[in-house]
Amino acid sequence: MAKDFPTRAENYSQWYNDLVIKAELAENSAVRGCMVIKPYGYAIWEKIQAVLDKMFKDTGHSNAYFPLFIPKSFFSREAAHVEGFAKECAVVTHYRLKNSPDGKGLIVDEDAKLEEELIIRPTSETIIWDTYKNWIKSYRDLPLLINQWANVVRWEMRTRLFLRTAEFLWQEGHTAHATREEAVKEAETMLNVYADFAENWMAVPVLKGTKSPAERFAGALETYAIESLMQDGKSLQTGTSHFLGQNFAKAFDVKFLNKENQLDYVWATSWGVSTRLMGALIMAHSDDNGLIIPPRLAPIQVVFVPVFKSEEQKGQITEKVIPLVNAIRKSGITVKYDDRDTHKPGWKFAEYEFKGIPVRITVGPRDIEQGTVEVARRDTLEKETYLMTDLDTKISHLLDKIQKNLFDKAVSFRENSTYRVDSYDEFKKILDDKGGFLYAHWDGTAETEAMIKEETKATIRVIPLDNPKESGICIYSGKPSVQRVVFARSY
Amino acid sequence: MAKDFPTRAENYSQWYNDLVIKAELAENSAVRGCMVIKPYGYAIWEKIQAVLDKMFKDTGHSNAYFPLFIPKSFFSREAAHVEGFAKECAVVTHYRLKNSPDGKGLIVDEDAKLEEELIIRPTSETIIWDTYKNWIKSYRDLPLLINQWANVVRWEMRTRLFLRTAEFLWQEGHTAHATREEAVKEAETMLNVYADFAENWMAVPVLKGTKSPAERFAGALETYAIESLMQDGKSLQTGTSHFLGQNFAKAFDVKFLNKENQLDYVWATSWGVSTRLMGALIMAHSDDNGLIIPPRLAPIQVVFVPVFKSEEQKGQITEKVIPLVNAIRKSGITVKYDDRDTHKPGWKFAEYEFKGIPVRITVGPRDIEQGTVEVARRDTLEKETYLMTDLDTKISHLLDKIQKNLFDKAVSFRENSTYRVDSYDEFKKILDDKGGFLYAHWDGTAETEAMIKEETKATIRVIPLDNPKESGICIYSGKPSVQRVVFARSY
Repeated sequence: MAKDFPTRAENYSQWYNDLVIKAELAENSAVRGCMVIKPYGYAIWEKIQAVLDKMFKDTGHSNAYFPLFIPKSFFSREAAHVEGFAKECAVVTHYRLKNSPDGKGLIVDEDAKLEEELIIRPTSETIIWDTYKNWIKSYRDLPLLINQWANVVRWEMRTRLFLRTAEFLWQEGHTAHATREEAVKEAETMLNVYADFAENWMAVPVLKGTKSPAERFAGALETYAIESLMQDGKSLQTGTSHFLGQNFAKAFDVKFLNKENQLDYVWATSWGVSTRLMGALIMAHSDDNGLIIPPRLAPIQVVFVPVFKSEEQKGQITEKVIPLVNAIRKSGITVKYDDRDTHKPGWKFAEYEFKGIPVRITVGPRDIEQGTVEVARRDTLEKETYLMTDLDTKISHLLDKIQKNLFDKAVSFRENSTYRVDSYDEFKKILDDKGGFLYAHWDGTAETEAMIKEETKATIRVIPLDNPKESGICIYSGKPSVQRVVFARSY
Repeated sequence: MAKDFPTRAENYSQWYNDLVIKAELAENSAVRGCMVIKPYGYAIWEKIQAVLDKMFKDTGHSNAYFPLFIPKSFFSREAAHVEGFAKECAVVTHYRLKNSPDGKGLIVDEDAKLEEELIIRPTSETIIWDTYKNWIKSYRDLPLLINQWANVVRWEMRTRLFLRTAEFLWQEGHTAHATREEAVKEAETMLNVYADFAENWMAVPVLKGTKSPAERFAGALETYAIESLMQDGKSLQTGTSHFLGQNFAKAFDVKFLNKENQLDYVWATSWGVSTRLMGALIMAHSDDNGLIIPPRLAPIQVVFVPVFKSEEQKGQITEKVIPLVNAIRKSGITVKYDDRDTHKPGWKFAEYEFKGIPVRITVGPRDIEQGTVEVARRDTLEKETYLMTDLDTKISHLLDKIQKNLFDKAVSFRENSTYRVDSYDEFKKILDDKGGFLYAHWDGTAETEAMIKEETKATIRVIPLDNPKESGICIYSGKPSVQRVVFARSY
């Protein structure tokens, strides 16, 4: 596991890409913009899925599955939605190939042209609301709280592993409600679920807020988002939750009989997180030595490496170590015991460090004599000698400590990269020098927002929830402003 | 939950379709041939996934994810494979829509035509073997044991919910090995995993065997399959496992350095089960009263229905029932306590019977006085009074008993529908009168197999594993035969 890749300081973007590939998380496929998620990367994604899925179910949602294909005409129904997605979608036009008359391979069979083209879902509001039309008749059918785990396709021109790929995996919640208030509450609840997950599982602190109208989801009345600061000072949108009003109900004619026996359009939300979370997880914590995976999402949390010179020594160590491994496993911790003869301990140390296993435990002949083990933390690279007694409890505490340390470190980093900025010059200077979250006054207009984006590549990431009102002057236009909003460059 | 659907005897096919829709398992979507899997159906699928996923991991496999799209040219590489799939595939030709010049909706943007068309995966051998080329260099990289949970698309002209849909969900295992023997063993191991799952979880007995050359997977040297008999006497292929030889390794040039330091092509297997299992599960056990879900795969295993006439009675019942519910949950059983006031007990009884909940427990005021509950089994529709004492243990045993009863019933049904047939007339008569598994002599030629299929719609479902050799005369051609094979009409 040679460290033949740049440091973050040398080339952050290359560091990220190399890390993803060399740590065997994912790689580019033969299909432009589509990635292969390799077993180690997928194992982390499975942990993410399992935790989120439980959170969704605990908040009353059920899973279901809707078609991959969306009839083209569905897109035209919601005006904003089509603007947002039609320009980057994969279109199925035919349903058969045939042998080329010249005998050179396969060609599309023109006799098998679809009457109406099908779009690979870039998101499923349209097909789902077309379905909900038949499911919802009365207030008794509401709320309808459904989630789907699926693949989606957005034909992005510039792609990066996990962060922006043509195909990606995600979950999309789609809920239907009898009242505006209930739908808004649902959108906020799911934002909080995402924030809870990001902070307590990924150890990634988030800013919670709403998007400016220009940055809203295509078809939403309000988009809530969580934003996280990466080590290069750029922000990553880690999750969004949308209050869709009655837009999709109107587009797909979904009405219900309310308690007053009157027909009304249904209120909607949608919310999603994707394999992009993998990008956030990797970028938020990892260092120039390789990956750092927070314990609560690590597929392997603890690895034991025996150090021996003979089969006899190996036997003695194994005899002592197996009960320790079993005890630790009993506390619900995932442990690997790597006693392979084919690789030297040094190779293993480097490998597990690079792969970001939170805790490595080394056991040699002297440890056996003394009843000790050597415990190495991946986050701080510190090593310490532990007595074997109660090792399970100690390791359990250590994993909690590492989880907390990663979160605290990320919080300090964000605090040190957060600025209150009062002039446009200062704004541009900080962006160029350090990046980070810039709290600045904005006059509330789309024009100003667009000009700032054009000139600096910074966008309004969020208007924080419960943002304090504060009179001020827009850094760009000099016009009056009622609050500071959070600007940053972003992924 | 009106039983306004035909009995199995009246119209088996309609009975199945109505059951799937009325029990809210799935429905047809707005997209031809694609289904929506509704929350109750998806909950069963999630249980299937969880059990199988653990079985795959216990046998050493890891999950990964490969692209939805396959470049058209990949299909031409393996000759048999292209024949099998090119005629029923969804083809992506463009990556953008634009507004129609006449202002009437959206049209495909001809400027956004792909250089090479992309096929939505009907199965992933090609894209995966193209990827494996870079992963496999030496025998040290083998075996490579990977599984993927994914959606696939096969443009079937006639579709039926769960049994045959244009898009379906499945898992596909793709493994690479250093030797032929190891690959064959892997294909057999996975067949046994499927059989274990079908019999011990789905309570569906299976015949294990190999397919005739004509029925093999496109690109396989040997296809192993499990086949199950449905209540209408037709066979359903519930899982397949393929020994692919070196076909895909040769098509995608995947060579490895073996222990003797020589380059050799890699040996391959692939194996899969799909949402079709849902069809088998429904058809194997359900009756004219509705679904019957085997306890081990039921999303809700036990439902409590309190019967009360006043809030006071409800309170008394709830006070007694909650500890029972909690005790049963503690033994790992999924319990629902349905104390809704909005529905009458009679409605609830009908609903849970129709939905196939294995055990219903009714508790009324007299039960509270006597310390009893009324326990109704869905499989036999029998009711019995139980003392509340040790109810958790009793219910746990009852669920096991129901699971076993369903399996035993299915085994008897299969035994009673299995025939040794020695003449073509008898063969045709039994097929028309009763269906079932017909063990008959076959001369081993594709011609005979094709003629029998054409004349009777029956195909060779499997040549059973460890089939006894038995000299005989082919029922069709009168030529010599060395063994009986299993014929049936099928889904």
